[in-house]
Amino acid sequence: MLYLARMDVHFPAHLAATEIAHLQALEKEYSQALQESGRLASIWRVVGEYANYSVFDVESNDQLHEILSGFPMYAHMKIHVTPLAKHPNAIR
Amino acid sequence: MLYLARMDVHFPAHLAATEIAHLQALEKEYSQALQESGRLASIWRVVGEYANYSVFDVESNDQLHEILSGFPMYAHMKIHVTPLAKHPNAIR
Amino acid sequence: MLYLARMDVHFPAHLAATEIAHLQALEKEYSQALQESGRLASIWRVVGEYANYSVFDVESNDQLHEILSGFPMYAHMKIHVTPLAKHPNAIR
Amino acid sequence: MLYLARMDVHFPAHLAATEIAHLQALEKEYSQALQESGRLASIWRVVGEYANYSVFDVESNDQLHEILSGFPMYAHMKIHVTPLAKHPNAIR
Amino acid sequence: MLYLARMDVHFPAHLAATEIAHLQALEKEYSQALQESGRLASIWRVVGEYANYSVFDVESNDQLHEILSGFPMYAHMKIHVTPLAKHPNAIR
Amino acid sequence: MLYLARMDVHFPAHLAATEIAHLQALEKEYSQALQESGRLASIWRVVGEYANYSVFDVESNDQLHEILSGFPMYAHMKIHVTPLAKHPNAIR
Amino acid sequence: MLYLARMDVHFPAHLAATEIAHLQALEKEYSQALQESGRLASIWRVVGEYANYSVFDVESNDQLHEILSGFPMYAHMKIHVTPLAKHPNAIR
Amino acid sequence: MLYLARMDVHFPAHLAATEIAHLQALEKEYSQALQESGRLASIWRVVGEYANYSVFDVESNDQLHEILSGFPMYAHMKIHVTPLAKHPNAIR
Amino acid sequence: MLYLARMDVHFPAHLAATEIAHLQALEKEYSQALQESGRLASIWRVVGEYANYSVFDVESNDQLHEILSGFPMYAHMKIHVTPLAKHPNAIR
Amino acid sequence: MLYLARMDVHFPAHLAATEIAHLQALEKEYSQALQESGRLASIWRVVGEYANYSVFDVESNDQLHEILSGFPMYAHMKIHVTPLAKHPNAIR
Repeated sequence: MLYLARMDVHFPAHLAATEIAHLQALEKEYSQALQESGRLASIWRVVGEYANYSVFDVESNDQLHEILSGFPMYAHMKIHVTPLAKHPNAIR
Repeated sequence: MLYLARMDVHFPAHLAATEIAHLQALEKEYSQALQESGRLASIWRVVGEYANYSVFDVESNDQLHEILSGFPMYAHMKIHVTPLAKHPNAIR
Repeated sequence: MLYLARMDVHFPAHLAATEIAHLQALEKEYSQALQESGRLASIWRVVGEYANYSVFDVESNDQLHEILSGFPMYAHMKIHVTPLAKHPNAIR
Repeated sequence: MLYLARMDVHFPAHLAATEIAHLQALEKEYSQALQESGRLASIWRVVGEYANYSVFDVESNDQLHEILSGFPMYAHMKIHVTPLAKHPNAIR
Repeated sequence: MLYLARMDVHFPAHLAATEIAHLQALEKEYSQALQESGRLASIWRVVGEYANYSVFDVESNDQLHEILSGFPMYAHMKIHVTPLAKHPNAIR
Repeated sequence: MLYLARMDVHFPAHLAATEIAHLQALEKEYSQALQESGRLASIWRVVGEYANYSVFDVESNDQLHEILSGFPMYAHMKIHVTPLAKHPNAIR
Repeated sequence: MLYLARMDVHFPAHLAATEIAHLQALEKEYSQALQESGRLASIWRVVGEYANYSVFDVESNDQLHEILSGFPMYAHMKIHVTPLAKHPNAIR
Repeated sequence: MLYLARMDVHFPAHLAATEIAHLQALEKEYSQALQESGRLASIWRVVGEYANYSVFDVESNDQLHEILSGFPMYAHMKIHVTPLAKHPNAIR
Repeated sequence: MLYLARMDVHFPAHLAATEIAHLQALEKEYSQALQESGRLASIWRVVGEYANYSVFDVESNDQLHEILSGFPMYAHMKIHVTPLAKHPNAIR
Repeated sequence: MLYLARMDVHFPAHLAATEIAHLQALEKEYSQALQESGRLASIWRVVGEYANYSVFDVESNDQLHEILSGFPMYAHMKIHVTPLAKHPNAIR
């Protein structure tokens, strides 16, 4: 079951550069494990913004929330989720 | 080069059901040819709305505009395009 | 799996009162069948507006879209869907 | 009498993790007492967001405000309340 | 129990001046009966707009919806309702 | 001459609880004096929000601004003012 | 007493060019009489839009509403009024 | 003196295809004359939308309004103008 | 050449009262010099807000930007500029 | 391939004036190198705002994101990118 998520990252002003780098390293690891498992089907950077659009392929709303709230940078992201359905014109 | 497009369809009130059905048939044909050529990489229905999110894989901004403005239902769609870049955490 | 949907109804100006009444009768029948099946768990009127908030209990995004796009008044409604997850403080 | 409330939580950046955990524990206790009393009829997490939709069943506007402003995390929440009425198609 | 309502009137373009005048006469009658009963506690025109702010004093959300949806011009109004509570600084 | 004002209170994160309590006490005194003089005709709490709707009865725009900017919590409030006129259907 | 008003004109699609020209002629006459009386202190066109910003100098909210609702094109304008006060830095 | 304008075109539903084509031909002629005179320095299509961003190089606000309101499709366009100044980092 | 500017002032929370008072004194001086030179033709307070609407009479976009960015409180203001043209109904 | 970008600068309140000046010097250098290479075709200041509109001429979405995220002040800017296509009426 597919969902489109847009995630915008906003670090608070006081966060040290090393803390940010640490969070980003954890985020990369988490994100890549999700991709390898197939749960995170696609992830793209929005040009010019610290934001991404991602497509998730999960079993349920609850599983998606568990995955999203597990992101190491979750506390610093604004996430908006759009549930997707099969398009009648899709050939796949 | 990838772009995310959201398209919302709004038919004018006076359009006959047969005209709508005809436009939809043309749209399907056009959409499926685009998918077969690889230009339209993905297309999903937004749950509960007459709208889709689509991922286009094209050579240039101009080519994308030509494709989008060629949709048979183009005059009845509100389209918003977001250019995408490779995400640093993407494994593909 | 639960979803919250807000639906706003806007009939086009030219629709005759009898056509509206007919659509509303079909809508009632469809809505009540959904409630009896348990798919439509709750439906409330927004005070002062021709709009409702509804809670759907369905198997998948695709099933929800099928249900929503099957509403007799679907062409005259603006629908926005929010996927819901279990709240950690919920006792049920 | 029913109301739908959406609550979005935003902790200020300087709040310590232990303070947040303490507030969350108080919140859970308060929320569960409200559910047991029937005042808080339903509570769901919005997928991907630190937010909830809740349905309150109370005697009056004043009682609802007293309940909402009593939440331990009230100072850190943005709340929007929508009054609900019986829907003519509802079977319950 | 008090509610603030803002109502914006938009007549469709094809409505004849006599039909509008007729609706307005019915509206006046309905509004004044509500005021006499005390249900409509106050009504003011928004300067420069075909809109009003009104304060309703009713028993319940359901009663308010019944009153609002009974307005002769209901189909041509966009209404937004805000539930009000006693203010801690109010002296009345 | 009547005006509707909506005031939303946002205290900065660093303000101590005692400072807030002090401001709130001054605010109450100021608000009640305004009510006794008749300048502040009504004040209601918006259910679930640290906000109020108020009706002011004053001589002029300048007098209203003087009153509003004199509120002890003025620096921490977002205020929006709507000028009101007599409604043609009002019976008072 | 001063007010800033922004007025946006939107004629319905079916209005004939001669009807529009007639309304515009009436509007000019009405606007110029208001300027001569001093009630309409200034009027400017917003560059690129069928819209104006105007400054009114009137006795009361009620008088302003009477003036605005008397505009021949009132039914085709969206008006937003902002009450103005003397600025502490103004030298006039 | 430079201005950025965004123009969005919306033809009313009843306009015949031949009328639209005629307006578009007039528009092209007008636009190209403006470009040749240097008044319209640049014009670009927004990808996927019936809209453009244009840079105008004119003597004054009044001249710009005269140019914009002279567009053959002016009645069917929503225009928003942003005045531009020299950027301190610009090398030209 | 005329422009309407709306300026909203937001001081950061940590700014001391004496710093604010100092900035306000500089602002007053700057504003009054601009009024005496005729560049700032009018300035009004928005009732209930720390904001003003101002009319500037300047030679060019560049001159206006130089004036606005020279305001002592510029770093703490959100400014939006609307270019104005002569209104066809204006008698002055 | 052309893109329009709007960039709004917001420095956090705690940033020292010398740090800001340092960032601005780096920004100027970076911006001017981009202009000399032809990648940044135009850059204009928005009158009255700490913001710019820029036109980029690049090979791809990825190249644009690399350029934008390389701006020394990138962490303090909100950027919105609009992809542009050739306009059918453009003569160049």
